[in-house]
Amino acid sequence: MNDIKQILTQLHEHNISVDEALLSLKEKPFVDIGYANVDLHRKLRKGANEVIYGEGKTAEQISGIVEVMRSNGQKNILITRLSQEKANALRELELDYHAEARLAIVGQVPKPEGGNFIIVATGGTSDIPVAEEAALTAEFLGNSVKRLYDVGVAGLHRVLSHVDEIMSASVIIAVAGMEGALASVLGGLADCPVIAVPTSVGYGASFGGVSALLAMLNSCASGVSVVNIDNGFGAGYLASMINRVRT
Amino acid sequence: MNDIKQILTQLHEHNISVDEALLSLKEKPFVDIGYANVDLHRKLRKGANEVIYGEGKTAEQISGIVEVMRSNGQKNILITRLSQEKANALRELELDYHAEARLAIVGQVPKPEGGNFIIVATGGTSDIPVAEEAALTAEFLGNSVKRLYDVGVAGLHRVLSHVDEIMSASVIIAVAGMEGALASVLGGLADCPVIAVPTSVGYGASFGGVSALLAMLNSCASGVSVVNIDNGFGAGYLASMINRVRT
Amino acid sequence: MNDIKQILTQLHEHNISVDEALLSLKEKPFVDIGYANVDLHRKLRKGANEVIYGEGKTAEQISGIVEVMRSNGQKNILITRLSQEKANALRELELDYHAEARLAIVGQVPKPEGGNFIIVATGGTSDIPVAEEAALTAEFLGNSVKRLYDVGVAGLHRVLSHVDEIMSASVIIAVAGMEGALASVLGGLADCPVIAVPTSVGYGASFGGVSALLAMLNSCASGVSVVNIDNGFGAGYLASMINRVRT
Amino acid sequence: MNDIKQILTQLHEHNISVDEALLSLKEKPFVDIGYANVDLHRKLRKGANEVIYGEGKTAEQISGIVEVMRSNGQKNILITRLSQEKANALRELELDYHAEARLAIVGQVPKPEGGNFIIVATGGTSDIPVAEEAALTAEFLGNSVKRLYDVGVAGLHRVLSHVDEIMSASVIIAVAGMEGALASVLGGLADCPVIAVPTSVGYGASFGGVSALLAMLNSCASGVSVVNIDNGFGAGYLASMINRVRT
Amino acid sequence: MNDIKQILTQLHEHNISVDEALLSLKEKPFVDIGYANVDLHRKLRKGANEVIYGEGKTAEQISGIVEVMRSNGQKNILITRLSQEKANALRELELDYHAEARLAIVGQVPKPEGGNFIIVATGGTSDIPVAEEAALTAEFLGNSVKRLYDVGVAGLHRVLSHVDEIMSASVIIAVAGMEGALASVLGGLADCPVIAVPTSVGYGASFGGVSALLAMLNSCASGVSVVNIDNGFGAGYLASMINRVRT
Amino acid sequence: MNDIKQILTQLHEHNISVDEALLSLKEKPFVDIGYANVDLHRKLRKGANEVIYGEGKTAEQISGIVEVMRSNGQKNILITRLSQEKANALRELELDYHAEARLAIVGQVPKPEGGNFIIVATGGTSDIPVAEEAALTAEFLGNSVKRLYDVGVAGLHRVLSHVDEIMSASVIIAVAGMEGALASVLGGLADCPVIAVPTSVGYGASFGGVSALLAMLNSCASGVSVVNIDNGFGAGYLASMINRVRT
Amino acid sequence: MNDIKQILTQLHEHNISVDEALLSLKEKPFVDIGYANVDLHRKLRKGANEVIYGEGKTAEQISGIVEVMRSNGQKNILITRLSQEKANALRELELDYHAEARLAIVGQVPKPEGGNFIIVATGGTSDIPVAEEAALTAEFLGNSVKRLYDVGVAGLHRVLSHVDEIMSASVIIAVAGMEGALASVLGGLADCPVIAVPTSVGYGASFGGVSALLAMLNSCASGVSVVNIDNGFGAGYLASMINRVRT
Amino acid sequence: MNDIKQILTQLHEHNISVDEALLSLKEKPFVDIGYANVDLHRKLRKGANEVIYGEGKTAEQISGIVEVMRSNGQKNILITRLSQEKANALRELELDYHAEARLAIVGQVPKPEGGNFIIVATGGTSDIPVAEEAALTAEFLGNSVKRLYDVGVAGLHRVLSHVDEIMSASVIIAVAGMEGALASVLGGLADCPVIAVPTSVGYGASFGGVSALLAMLNSCASGVSVVNIDNGFGAGYLASMINRVRT
Repeated sequence: MNDIKQILTQLHEHNISVDEALLSLKEKPFVDIGYANVDLHRKLRKGANEVIYGEGKTAEQISGIVEVMRSNGQKNILITRLSQEKANALRELELDYHAEARLAIVGQVPKPEGGNFIIVATGGTSDIPVAEEAALTAEFLGNSVKRLYDVGVAGLHRVLSHVDEIMSASVIIAVAGMEGALASVLGGLADCPVIAVPTSVGYGASFGGVSALLAMLNSCASGVSVVNIDNGFGAGYLASMINRVRT
Repeated sequence: MNDIKQILTQLHEHNISVDEALLSLKEKPFVDIGYANVDLHRKLRKGANEVIYGEGKTAEQISGIVEVMRSNGQKNILITRLSQEKANALRELELDYHAEARLAIVGQVPKPEGGNFIIVATGGTSDIPVAEEAALTAEFLGNSVKRLYDVGVAGLHRVLSHVDEIMSASVIIAVAGMEGALASVLGGLADCPVIAVPTSVGYGASFGGVSALLAMLNSCASGVSVVNIDNGFGAGYLASMINRVRT
Repeated sequence: MNDIKQILTQLHEHNISVDEALLSLKEKPFVDIGYANVDLHRKLRKGANEVIYGEGKTAEQISGIVEVMRSNGQKNILITRLSQEKANALRELELDYHAEARLAIVGQVPKPEGGNFIIVATGGTSDIPVAEEAALTAEFLGNSVKRLYDVGVAGLHRVLSHVDEIMSASVIIAVAGMEGALASVLGGLADCPVIAVPTSVGYGASFGGVSALLAMLNSCASGVSVVNIDNGFGAGYLASMINRVRT
Repeated sequence: MNDIKQILTQLHEHNISVDEALLSLKEKPFVDIGYANVDLHRKLRKGANEVIYGEGKTAEQISGIVEVMRSNGQKNILITRLSQEKANALRELELDYHAEARLAIVGQVPKPEGGNFIIVATGGTSDIPVAEEAALTAEFLGNSVKRLYDVGVAGLHRVLSHVDEIMSASVIIAVAGMEGALASVLGGLADCPVIAVPTSVGYGASFGGVSALLAMLNSCASGVSVVNIDNGFGAGYLASMINRVRT
Repeated sequence: MNDIKQILTQLHEHNISVDEALLSLKEKPFVDIGYANVDLHRKLRKGANEVIYGEGKTAEQISGIVEVMRSNGQKNILITRLSQEKANALRELELDYHAEARLAIVGQVPKPEGGNFIIVATGGTSDIPVAEEAALTAEFLGNSVKRLYDVGVAGLHRVLSHVDEIMSASVIIAVAGMEGALASVLGGLADCPVIAVPTSVGYGASFGGVSALLAMLNSCASGVSVVNIDNGFGAGYLASMINRVRT
Repeated sequence: MNDIKQILTQLHEHNISVDEALLSLKEKPFVDIGYANVDLHRKLRKGANEVIYGEGKTAEQISGIVEVMRSNGQKNILITRLSQEKANALRELELDYHAEARLAIVGQVPKPEGGNFIIVATGGTSDIPVAEEAALTAEFLGNSVKRLYDVGVAGLHRVLSHVDEIMSASVIIAVAGMEGALASVLGGLADCPVIAVPTSVGYGASFGGVSALLAMLNSCASGVSVVNIDNGFGAGYLASMINRVRT
Repeated sequence: MNDIKQILTQLHEHNISVDEALLSLKEKPFVDIGYANVDLHRKLRKGANEVIYGEGKTAEQISGIVEVMRSNGQKNILITRLSQEKANALRELELDYHAEARLAIVGQVPKPEGGNFIIVATGGTSDIPVAEEAALTAEFLGNSVKRLYDVGVAGLHRVLSHVDEIMSASVIIAVAGMEGALASVLGGLADCPVIAVPTSVGYGASFGGVSALLAMLNSCASGVSVVNIDNGFGAGYLASMINRVRT
Repeated sequence: MNDIKQILTQLHEHNISVDEALLSLKEKPFVDIGYANVDLHRKLRKGANEVIYGEGKTAEQISGIVEVMRSNGQKNILITRLSQEKANALRELELDYHAEARLAIVGQVPKPEGGNFIIVATGGTSDIPVAEEAALTAEFLGNSVKRLYDVGVAGLHRVLSHVDEIMSASVIIAVAGMEGALASVLGGLADCPVIAVPTSVGYGASFGGVSALLAMLNSCASGVSVVNIDNGFGAGYLASMINRVRT
């Protein structure tokens, strides 16, 4: 978008024609490969390379998108919501597959810079897959991550024994299903933003994560915001965005 | 119901006729006053006098029911969900009206027996009316009550500063709106039953107490059960039932 | 929590250092085994050993948690929501598996103490698995249990033929799907607390137990509270908590 | 509709022209008065005169419809959902207004024919307005009605004391809010159709009658069907339809 | 229940003792076979033999219940919601299995008595399984049934071509998914009760039958009532109850 | 948007500078008056002048927006969702206020062009306000409109008597609350697009129009689409868009 | 319906008898083949041949309906919601099967007439199956279609690069899951009707397409209407209906 | 919490007794004034003074809390959700009342530090009150705020004309009702965190903000998180927390 002025300037100086300008405005930032428009300007605009959301795409489609990205110079690629089967079918990409988080990384995970860190906490053991999606995403984007798993509020000791870390974190991701109270308790203890991720863990009146979602939206603690149910990637990405601005 | 055998025995011994027996079985425990069947055997069956639910009844109807109760020997009567207007209209009953809890007591509140006590805790200031309905009900039924108001989990210090009381209570009533996490936190700390009362306090996605209700139903803490939204009376009554059995 | 004063006293008397005190406060009551924080103080705080919720945990994780519990002296362990497959994989733990209730017991079920008993009643035959989870949990915790199965209100005779037992129970667990009216009817007959457990049995507008849940929350009978849909364990645990206080 | 053949026969015998036939088919059974199409053939087709649903119509519109009906020979007219204000504004129609049921009758209520009767039962005192709408509708349509009010299942004695009437009724209308269990209990006792009417009475998780509605739809008792929340008129009308066929 | 007086009379005349009377009142109408209370008085009370709801019962349990029924003189037995697998496992009962309706009949279907008939109509082809459950149930209970399948309102001709039958039916069962308008259209044409059965047929915003259910509950046509989604049995049973009273 | 090329051409020909071009691209089509961005290019882009949605705007704000529109040459202005109070406060605008439809027109309603017409039909009398909003909007936009009010499907004769008009309409707007079946029936009869408008008319399980909305979304008739509950304006606007393309 | 006059005329002229007329009115437009009423007049009434909805019909039933259609002169037949299995079983029909869209065509797809075209746009790659159902349906009905896939609003460039096509389309079908914003953005850019199709793509709080559905119903852009979730066929059919009227 | 070590050290050095230590741990950070526990350590823990949520508190209670805060040295106090009536009653506090945002400030709003700024954008004019709550909160906490009001996506030009500001913001708060697409469009353009605030603005299927809430939770754009419906305060507070860390 920032390019608009540049293109207009080129036009003004007669370096490009009107139609070329129009064309530039329209076609540059994407490569259209039929089933997908791969965004190549994203790093410029959003500060991070585009990520491939694996669900609902065939292994062939994913492979094709990776191809385009690589041939445009993107070295490290994150693929989320990737089943074991598709991961197997994509072996030749030499991807690093994390089965629990259903996530693959092509290329290298960078060393985290600086001393700030993100906490990823879960209410229970069953919330770990979503938490790992968040944690690995944040690490892929260059952040340092501390994991505090199974610290649900039904045993407050478990949270309280980590108060020091909670109070020095840069961002906290609170991953919890069932009643989702973890976000409120962490939000009350910490002085940094808390990103709440409801999980679909639970049964009965947990309604696939809706109860946790509602509890988190109603959190009395200030500084808490919420992402979609099971959206570990979104939480990790946002946490990185917030953390980055600290340095 | 226990009377069935007694009635049958009377019948067997020819003290009453078949039709009298049938009649007894049918008509005894209620006085039908047209718009209501006043239950006079309730204390026998349920261990507590019948209570008048004021909502949806006119002042005249309430007055009529009180009349029947009194003339059948019930001295202390609890009237719940009573608006200020109806309370005014019932002045001649010499009732003790609690405006915040929208509840009136005819007669005397008994001295609590023994050392056991019930805790009534709220998440915030706005939950107090429901909590008072619970607390006054429990006191009306002969219980000792401790109130811990505005101890929501967004400031854990507030709960933790009362750990001693929480751990020595006989029953705890946790009254909270919004995300309803108070029940889980108290349930994790206490070793007694926790009765969770969701309140309709809140806005937006609190959906008139539904979010708190769902969170409480999904509580990870053991020993937590839930009553209807804003049902302070139900919680106080149940707490009394549980507390009584301790002695 | 009660330990806080003790730890502070030790500190005051110079038996432990400040850092040891801090450490005690933080790390004692849990053993962190990566994917779980096993609570070892629970019996002290809650009056019952910790229970393993099997769903969402692998057989290996469950085995690891049992290991930690046993090595810390917990002899009898309850594992709920355990599939037949995982139960098979855990054969070497010599657990006693109840297929219908999807629940396993490691060690011995104690003899029930005293004369009080808990009634577990179901509306229909299909509610029995949830009822068994409740009944076995209560028995595991040392209670005497009477089962009244298939006594739904569409045939009132079935409930009424058990009025004597209903009126002498210490606590009643009412397990029902569909319209969930059993809780109200039992609540009207009994003078003890009734714990209502909605089940996901039914079809169409039963919405996986939501209709029963709502009916139970709206029960006109006093002394009724509700736990999550299909939460037999929670009902059994709470019933034990209430029953225990009777002795 | 039955007239089609008659019209066709007239046409065939050249008593009417093709266009007259078409016209007859189209325009006969209704009088279009701009804001309403008043149905004049309804008694033929449906066995009962058309009824005026008062809600959302102005007093003038209602007056106009009554006018058309009367001038077409309909003597007795039922107006439902009529506010006190509109009833006052319609004084000159000499209608008999029932404030509680919000219903007015123009003309005479017929003497009920025969020995069959309809029972209208309510769970509580607050359900009476809806029950009265049902009872008065049934009486308007020529039925004999017995009222059993405040016989909710939380006090089973109240229902059981009327077993004889319940078992000899022709149709039963069960009006209840909250948990709606009355329909199931009556359905289990009676051998006639039970029409369940959920009411919007209640608070919290009663959700304006939805909980009662769901409970009634899920009734385990056979022979129970359900009408819309607070739809006393619909229940009375249907009950009359079923009862009539008995004679 | 009608037996109560008889038992009391016997008692009065000293033909039975008090305890025998009590026993009779309690235990007679049911045979408790552990997992089920088989109701043997049902035909007396409800006018029809008890039916076995197959879902959630094992083939062994069903076989056991059939056993008890037969040994108590019930010759014709209806088993609903029976899967093909269980039907195969129950071959030795010589049941007549209707795969589409998932329903089996043990014994003979009686000849329908009299000239009245029930119409079972469906909106589309996919609604036929539920309709067959209704139709076969009604036939099992001795009714004459006419089937009008695939007459949905999107092609009004299909309904209108059956107006004669619709207007002479005794009861109509309207089975439809999606928008459920069939019940309203039939209700507007017929002068008999219409039992609406929403089906879970559809996709997207049909929400498993909820849309059809709501549309049917809101039907503007008088004389329409609704049973649970996919509850063909309930509709057939109720239709029989209404039809029977005609003769 | 179409202007982009024009602006670029001007730039290319040095008639405007780069910054002027940028400015044009950004600021031209709107007039920002603080609380609103008035769209002045809308007629170019959308083929119709912008309309003022009155709800949530003060009379002053509406007056200000009308001012801007007029001073930019827009003569005829439609204001929807305008309360009687605000209409009174805006008297000096000389607007033509339609109280039932809560809609005002500043300026002239054009003569409809050509022979095509739009039908606006309602299920009942109470749906008329929403229908009028649709009809007046369509007329404001230059269409010919026929009104068919109170033709709900519970009396099929009423719809069928208008079959000729229904079959020659260009577009049909079906306005109905309750069960919303009108859209399906009209969709089955007509060979033109049907725009379904659910209304919030009804009570109980009509849930403020949700039942009608769902029924309409599930319509089996082809050619039916749906707009928001009570959105008469949207339906009228869309109908005009479809009708216009005919000429 | 238009035939009514014709039949009446024949009757008037004694070319047919009254009973023949009645018969004609009733039975002509449908062929009843037991499980289905095949509509043969549809092309007359609706302007397009009847389509077979494959879901819930067996391969045999589909084959039978095709048979009837063909023998009545319908050459090109569209079968929607057809699984691969059924398509295989229907090989002998020589149908052209589109696996992604789960749709088959018997016969020829006509050449599109004229220069108008329909745009089918999707938010993401996963929405393509529903979009293809829409696009192929429109093509089957004789329309020219342009596909714009993966142009979701999270990367506005992708939409903006197609502004020219968007502004010259005759109708736009916007297919999107998740937040469904595509319809609003396209509706704001285009001056033709936009048909929004929510898809069940997504997870968590997308609730199987409900979130997209609601967003689309609430679209601030004028000229947007909505069809059922995943209803590609309905959108394609309606788009054709609107587009056709342009020529 | 950080104080724990300090208190323990004091204890260790015998500067305080065991009981004093216990007391400090319990009572220090709150002042309990009966109806509220005023948090005095909040600035230490959370980096911002406590805020008073005015809803559900009486003017007297608010006045009391302000008293305690002031006497403990808090100079600037924010009171949210304050009605005009209560604001009038609190005149003597010399508060600065913002009627549209229903928010009052006691004391001074600080000068914003540094060059970073927060954008507060709304979809329409009706969303402004919620946006003002957010903007004023952020300003109260020391941030620089830019307001972009009425830039909804139905007129993309309005958003696009502010691309430069959007791309240089530190945090964006997107306030929108109806379909809530603004958050997705802004999230796609910006490279900073976007906090989405659904508003209860709208009608029909907007369900008091639920549609916007769901759309925002399902946003395809990365970096978007959501707060409760109408929670302008929460968004402003969180934005400040994120913005602060930038400097």
